[in-house]
Amino acid sequence: MGHIEDRLTHLGLELPPEIRLPPGVVLPFAFVNVRGDRAIVSGHGPQLADGSLAPPFGQVEREVSLEQAIHSARLTALSMLGSLQRELGTLDRITGWQRVFGMVNSVPGFDQQPAVINGFSDLILDAFGPEVGRHARSAVGVASLPFGIPVEVEAEVSIGSASS
Amino acid sequence: MGHIEDRLTHLGLELPPEIRLPPGVVLPFAFVNVRGDRAIVSGHGPQLADGSLAPPFGQVEREVSLEQAIHSARLTALSMLGSLQRELGTLDRITGWQRVFGMVNSVPGFDQQPAVINGFSDLILDAFGPEVGRHARSAVGVASLPFGIPVEVEAEVSIGSASS
Amino acid sequence: MGHIEDRLTHLGLELPPEIRLPPGVVLPFAFVNVRGDRAIVSGHGPQLADGSLAPPFGQVEREVSLEQAIHSARLTALSMLGSLQRELGTLDRITGWQRVFGMVNSVPGFDQQPAVINGFSDLILDAFGPEVGRHARSAVGVASLPFGIPVEVEAEVSIGSASS
Repeated sequence: MGHIEDRLTHLGLELPPEIRLPPGVVLPFAFVNVRGDRAIVSGHGPQLADGSLAPPFGQVEREVSLEQAIHSARLTALSMLGSLQRELGTLDRITGWQRVFGMVNSVPGFDQQPAVINGFSDLILDAFGPEVGRHARSAVGVASLPFGIPVEVEAEVSIGSASS
Repeated sequence: MGHIEDRLTHLGLELPPEIRLPPGVVLPFAFVNVRGDRAIVSGHGPQLADGSLAPPFGQVEREVSLEQAIHSARLTALSMLGSLQRELGTLDRITGWQRVFGMVNSVPGFDQQPAVINGFSDLILDAFGPEVGRHARSAVGVASLPFGIPVEVEAEVSIGSASS
Repeated sequence: MGHIEDRLTHLGLELPPEIRLPPGVVLPFAFVNVRGDRAIVSGHGPQLADGSLAPPFGQVEREVSLEQAIHSARLTALSMLGSLQRELGTLDRITGWQRVFGMVNSVPGFDQQPAVINGFSDLILDAFGPEVGRHARSAVGVASLPFGIPVEVEAEVSIGSASS
């Protein structure tokens, strides 16, 4: 167990297992793709503790409230950390967050995407601190998302060697 | 001709020529931008063999069916490989796919973006194999796309030296 | 003052100060995040000379005209250059633009995102010239954007050392 994993435990946070997809869905890509000293992270959504996608589903301000969307963004951060841990062995290999791209399933006119994606950013900063956790970010409203998830986030992080 | 080009020929696939834009359209950016050992690829859409944008146009599940959108994603992969070949000389210089960002022109509520963008991912994996072709990916629904194309994909790849 | 700053002055362009956010808004991320030789730039929007977000707000072709949106994209470029200058000390440290991702707050069916984001690209090319300013780009339509801004752009640039 790494230092970041310890901190997550102290915060009372648990990482979900690999995603359980709906039947028949094939995703022929890597959730985390390591190339050189970068780990490029695919779009993630909120997961329950059993690995399935976490409700509620739909657009923010229609089927999903602002508070629920913020919680979905928080669950999305945990989903991503789970994928990173499985690929890297330990989250301690992350030497710096680079970029976070947060997409909110939004009705036209909804403009509080930053408040939603703060649910993601705040958890990353709590876990990694202000230096390693520092990231560039966009938070935007999209017309729809896979499986009706309310939030999807992709990211990139800098990584050190496995033995360090 | 490189090894990847040979494989595309064996798969019966042909790369389209440079895009023929609608009259009056000026695009003051590079379709492929090489910086160091990365080639950053602009958003591409589906092309016909004569270089023009391939129909159908519009939103998936309104003007464009799911099957048509999957085919558009496949044509978008060929369009991108054409741009990469023209910029790099040969596709063999690609040492690893990094990220793929797939955008589907979606009506609200459409949630099968992964199935659509699989048309892109499957072709890349067929051409480059599981190691080099491995990529992180997001597939999301956007409100509208340039020229009404149903699919747009941007990407990044790692590249080796021209002489290797 | 650097060479790029001189060129901006010759072009009659002024960089806005740090953004003045609406009351109560907290953005816990970096507008520019330097990691190694890359500066990753968060989503930016149009600013007025006093630092506040520049009107008009809303969707292009509903509340915002095409011409106004092009101007918003131009103001967004100035906003981003302001952030880069504050973080890097001088814009001369930018050795090459990598990617530009332009999002236009679009009604369904609007398909002139490239014309809008040209307002951004043209200013970058005027300021940095065709070699350093060369960039990959996507221009897409999104359902909604933070605070109702009509245009949001994120980017990445290559940077040299502070002393060079």
